[in-house]
Formats: sequence, structure tokens, C-alpha cells
Amino acid sequence: MNLSHRIRHLTGSSSDGWEVFYRARRMIDAGHAITELTIGEHDTRTDPSILAVMEASARAGHTGYAMVPGIDLLRDTVAARIQLRTGVPTTRDNVIITPGGQAGLFAAHTAVCDPGDTGLYLDPYYATYPGTIRGAGAVAKRIETRAEDAFQPRASDIDAAAHGAVSLLINTPSNPTGVVYSPETLSAIADVCQHRDLWLISDEVYDTQVWEGEHLSPRALPNMVERTLVVGSMSKSHAMTGSRCGWIVAPESVIEHLITLATHTTYGVPGFIQDAANFALSAGQSLEDKIAEPFRRRRALAVEVLAAQQTVSLIPAQGAMYLMLDIRATGLSGESFANALLDTHAIAVMPGESFGAAAAGHIRVAMTIADEKFVASLQKLCDFASQLAESR
Amino acid sequence: MNLSHRIRHLTGSSSDGWEVFYRARRMIDAGHAITELTIGEHDTRTDPSILAVMEASARAGHTGYAMVPGIDLLRDTVAARIQLRTGVPTTRDNVIITPGGQAGLFAAHTAVCDPGDTGLYLDPYYATYPGTIRGAGAVAKRIETRAEDAFQPRASDIDAAAHGAVSLLINTPSNPTGVVYSPETLSAIADVCQHRDLWLISDEVYDTQVWEGEHLSPRALPNMVERTLVVGSMSKSHAMTGSRCGWIVAPESVIEHLITLATHTTYGVPGFIQDAANFALSAGQSLEDKIAEPFRRRRALAVEVLAAQQTVSLIPAQGAMYLMLDIRATGLSGESFANALLDTHAIAVMPGESFGAAAAGHIRVAMTIADEKFVASLQKLCDFASQLAESR
Repeated sequence: MNLSHRIRHLTGSSSDGWEVFYRARRMIDAGHAITELTIGEHDTRTDPSILAVMEASARAGHTGYAMVPGIDLLRDTVAARIQLRTGVPTTRDNVIITPGGQAGLFAAHTAVCDPGDTGLYLDPYYATYPGTIRGAGAVAKRIETRAEDAFQPRASDIDAAAHGAVSLLINTPSNPTGVVYSPETLSAIADVCQHRDLWLISDEVYDTQVWEGEHLSPRALPNMVERTLVVGSMSKSHAMTGSRCGWIVAPESVIEHLITLATHTTYGVPGFIQDAANFALSAGQSLEDKIAEPFRRRRALAVEVLAAQQTVSLIPAQGAMYLMLDIRATGLSGESFANALLDTHAIAVMPGESFGAAAAGHIRVAMTIADEKFVASLQKLCDFASQLAESR
Repeated sequence: MNLSHRIRHLTGSSSDGWEVFYRARRMIDAGHAITELTIGEHDTRTDPSILAVMEASARAGHTGYAMVPGIDLLRDTVAARIQLRTGVPTTRDNVIITPGGQAGLFAAHTAVCDPGDTGLYLDPYYATYPGTIRGAGAVAKRIETRAEDAFQPRASDIDAAAHGAVSLLINTPSNPTGVVYSPETLSAIADVCQHRDLWLISDEVYDTQVWEGEHLSPRALPNMVERTLVVGSMSKSHAMTGSRCGWIVAPESVIEHLITLATHTTYGVPGFIQDAANFALSAGQSLEDKIAEPFRRRRALAVEVLAAQQTVSLIPAQGAMYLMLDIRATGLSGESFANALLDTHAIAVMPGESFGAAAAGHIRVAMTIADEKFVASLQKLCDFASQLAESR
């Protein structure tokens, strides 16, 4: 009587750098004052105007089972939003509402991968990616990108890994790198997907956080609409991380099967949360800009701080709420640097290694604290790195 | 580029009797007055006292990511409730909060079944069971129970099917049959599980709706605590179907792995919903009795109506919000009877066939409308059956 091999091997057994995060949390629990720049959580909470709609919906009796695919209203709003932003004709039949983006990633992989199939993902990656693919019973195959390319994937690397694979998972704007894939990158990815007959699972949960360039959805590229599953979410765009409300946009025939899957795995999303999400999305660009603004501001501040020194270099921070910093001039690994920074300055950041071997020698900094403190912490971080580099 | 075999074969291709349900819904949408006795949804909504706690929690800022295993408060409350009712020592480390009971059923099967493994379930069954097992990549193997046993499973039938199987899924009180498994049935099931080294997945979401006898959790039987995963939910006990909040209670080592799985499949449950659930559970027996009371009352009324005639016989309705009625005296299948009843009297019930071949010649009646109308509809149903039987 053993647990399944799958569940026992969802995550790798080697150290993945998350120990720094947990150590920081334990220090906080023990009463230490730690500056946390670790997790992608806004320093604001869900807007009261959104909560008011949720309350009114629940009080009006929307507390029974909601339709498994999502309520028509929200499916229509998501479809209209995507069509407006991408130009791709999209209706409610292209949309299923999921209990968060993570559930969307898992369902998308379950839809396209059978047990034993290979699902591709790019390193550096959001921490759950390989386990999500394994959770669907598939084999998670890593494709390394390069710091010297600013982590823009090379089509040749994907192509070399694609033989026999079923799907490719991408994320732009990217957590953890802050990179926004260029039109050239996306076009090359689309070519590989068609040439190698891959499903493309496109995680676009940071689509409202773009500081440089423009977010492009690969679903809008020629011949890609039929092989692309886009995962979206209210979490980052509307500071609704805790509401667990996201979606998948895909061909109708895929959505039909995803609805059947949802009937057997989640059975829908609370109706009152969907009503709140519909209100939030319908509020349009201005609310999204308001949520994104602190990160845009802090990113500009960070560029200034980093420009004033030579030791730490910034992977171009084009989007999302993170900075990926190259600290290899210190001679330390990301994990060693993060541990030393925590011990010396009580500042917690994520080692790049937590997001894959490709990000070794880097750290990820979440821009999720008040501006003044954020700048001061970043300054301390840079000074600390400079001292380490000088003492080599 | 195909979708996965798994997702394309989650449900059987044959007619399963749900067409009656959808036809009734279409008739309602077209403006017809249909009496719906189909779905297990309360005719009351979530209590305002529970919603008030949800609102206060959200307004207090519990709108960020909640801990993936569930908030400590709710895990503690669920553990204490189970310990109180079963006598089995239970702590928060035995509990993971899931986005509803269905997500619990899926996660439990994913935890114990690898792709290709066999998971057992009993016919009649709640409609999602076989697809849930298949969703985990496993082979769903059906074990038929018998109307003449009032659908109490025979250990010998389970034993005969168990060779090579990994898990057994049971549900008491049972949807769709309304049967509460006897101490003898549960003891025999426990013996088979030990003898055949099966995991037992015990769906106990109707544990507060018991009209005759007593709900026994098989986790409390000798030597079963280490091989039993109990699935529970706020849906039926607290009229919180739309809130999607449930749990799994299992050995600590199983919960640890389930937390890792949840990180990759759902990423937690809204904190404000968990706070509301914690309040509702803490309100204790009186609130649960209040929610169960209408079904207890209607079940007593149904017994009276049915006692006054000979055509339709009632499978002993010991628990849950349903009646399973044997209409074989009419000479019709459950599906034909349900269709005829819908057309003749505008009353919608579920064919037994929707819940498996073992319930052929039966119908399931949900006790989810106001008493007077419920009695009148049941009377019409019995009269209609009598006319059919007489005209044979």
C-alpha cells in the first residue's frame, strides 16, 4: 500500500533554494524584522469596490452551485477582453473559468498530455511548472535559456528538445525573469510548435504588467489559434490572488473537454467570486493600471539604483513584479548570496536556483514593498554585493 | 496534435440518462413551469451569518494567498470535529482543505492511484465517480450492488473485484441511494481493504444528513486509520455548495504529499471562504440540524405518501437528501419513466440509470422543494406509476 509514484515524485529531491524563503518566514515568526522581497504578492489587498460586488452577489443568493464552465457573464467578459487585446475572434465557448491560474495550468496539461507523454518547459521557470506537468502524469522536460540572451528562448534549443514532445509551456511576461518575449522570439516559438506539432500552453497571468515593449499573445500569431491554450488569472492583474479565479482560453473543442475535466476535478468556481471578477474586469484599463502602477514606479526606481553601481546587473526588467539580478560578480551562488543577505541585512530574496539551473548566480527580487523601503533595501543589497566582489 | 486519451475518455459514450435533466432545464429556459426534483441543491441559500463572516474576513484583508494546506484555524476545527465524532485522534496535520469535495475526491485518487492502476467504485454511484478515477489516469472498475440488498454492498463482490486494485471508493450516507451503510457492511469492507491491501476513499459529505441509524466513518474501525482517506465538504452540511470548500482527512504522510499536489493543481482555497467555513463549523450541531431539518421532514412526509400505495417502493431512505424509488412495477426503465413523467406532469426526476446499471428501473427524487409542493409532486408521481402499472 504505497502512495502513487506520481505524487511521491512531483518535486525533485535536490535542494532547490526555497530553504532561504522558509528560513526567512521562521525568523519572522520568531519576531525578527525581515524585509521580504520573495513572493509575488501585492502590498495592497483586493479593492473594496470588488469586495462590495462579491458581497452583494452572495447576499443576493449566488451561493449555490455555479455552472461548471463558469457563469456566462464572466466567460463573455473574458472573451471580449481577449478579443479586444489580440484581435482574435473569441466567444464564451472559447473560455472556461478555473479556480485560479495554477488550476488552469494543471488542467491545460491534463488536457493535452497523457501519462508518459513529454511536456516541455523553459528554465528559468515559475516554481510549480515541472511539478504541474508531472502532476498530469507526464514527463517534464527542461529547456535551458541563457542569461546572455536575457533569457529569451532560442528556437533551436526548443526544436532540439521537441522530438516526441506533446506540449510547450511558456510564460510572458515572465516570472521569475521579468522578461517580455519579443515578437521575434514568439514568432520562432510558433514556428517550432507548428513544425513539431506541439500544443502551446501560454501562461499570460502578468499580461497587465508590461514596462517595456508590448505583451503579445502567441494565440494571435498565424495558425496558432488552434494549438494554443492561454492561461489567465485575476490574481496579478487585479490583486485578487486569494480569490482563486482564472481561466483558460482555447479552441471550442478543447474547452468542451476541459469542462468535462472540471466536472470531475474542481466542479466550478464560486459564483459570488465570478461576479466580483466580472465587475473587476469590466472596470477596464484604469483599475488594472492602478494595480500595476506601484510595480512600474518601483521598477523605474530600481533601474536608477542599479545604474549607479557596476557589481549587480539587471536582466532587462520589461514586465511582471520581479527583478532578476545577476550577482555572479560576487563569486557566490544565488543561494549563498541570498543566505548571506538574510543573515547580514535581514533582507530576504529568492535565489535564482529556486527557478532552475539557468538562473544560477542570480537572485529574484519581488517589488512588493513600499517605495522608500524598497529603494533602501535594494541599495543595501547592491552595497553588500560590491563589498563581496571587492573582497574576492 | 490530439487531446489526451484520458480527457477524451473521461465519461462513457453511451446514453446515461442525463438527457432528461438537460431536457427539463431547456423546458424551464423556454418558460415552462417544471417541478425540478433532480439536483442535490438546498432550496435555501448560505446563511447570512456565514456570509457576514466571509465579508468581514475579506474586508480585513484576507484576500491574499492563503496557505496551500488551508488556514490553521480551519484545519484545527475540522480535525476537532472529526475527532469528536469518531474518537480517532486527529490533528491539523491530518487535514488538507480543498476547493470542494469533488476536488478532494480527485486529489485522493491522484494520491493513491498511478496511471493504469485500478480504482474500484460501487454501482449505483454519484455521477462523477468513474470520471474522477479516470481523470487521475486510473482504470475505473465498477462493482454492482443489488436493489434486493437495499444497495448495501456485499464484501464478497468487492473481494471478487479487488485483485490488483489499489483503492476502493465508498459513499455513506449514499448519493444516489439514500442508504447509510450498516456497521456490518462497513466492517466487512474494512476486512476486504486490509485483506486486499486497498486504500479506502470514504466520501462522507452527507454525514450530517442521517434519518435512520447512525453515520459511521470507516476511518474509526480497527486498523483502518492508516489506509483511509475521508473526503468531507461544507456543501451539503451547511448549504455552502457554491463556496467550494471541502477537505481530506488522512494520515500525516498522505497529507504532506497532498499539500505538494495542491501546490501544483489548485494552490489553495480563498482565505475569506475558509474563515466563513470555520465560523459555520464552529457554530456546531444546531446549525447543521437547521440545514438538515427540511430533508428530515420531507423524508418523513415521503414515507407516508409511499405507504399509501403499492406500486412504487422506497429503498430505505436512511440518509442524504434523496429518495431512490423502485418503479419496476410500471414496466418502464427509469429513463422512460422519467421522460414520461416530465411530459405528462412537468415533474423532473433523475433516472436511476444515470447513476449506474444497478439502479436501472429506479428513479432518484431530490427532496429539495417546499414541503407542500414536494408531497403533491410525489403523490402525482405515485398515481402516474399506478396508472402505468394497471395499464400493463
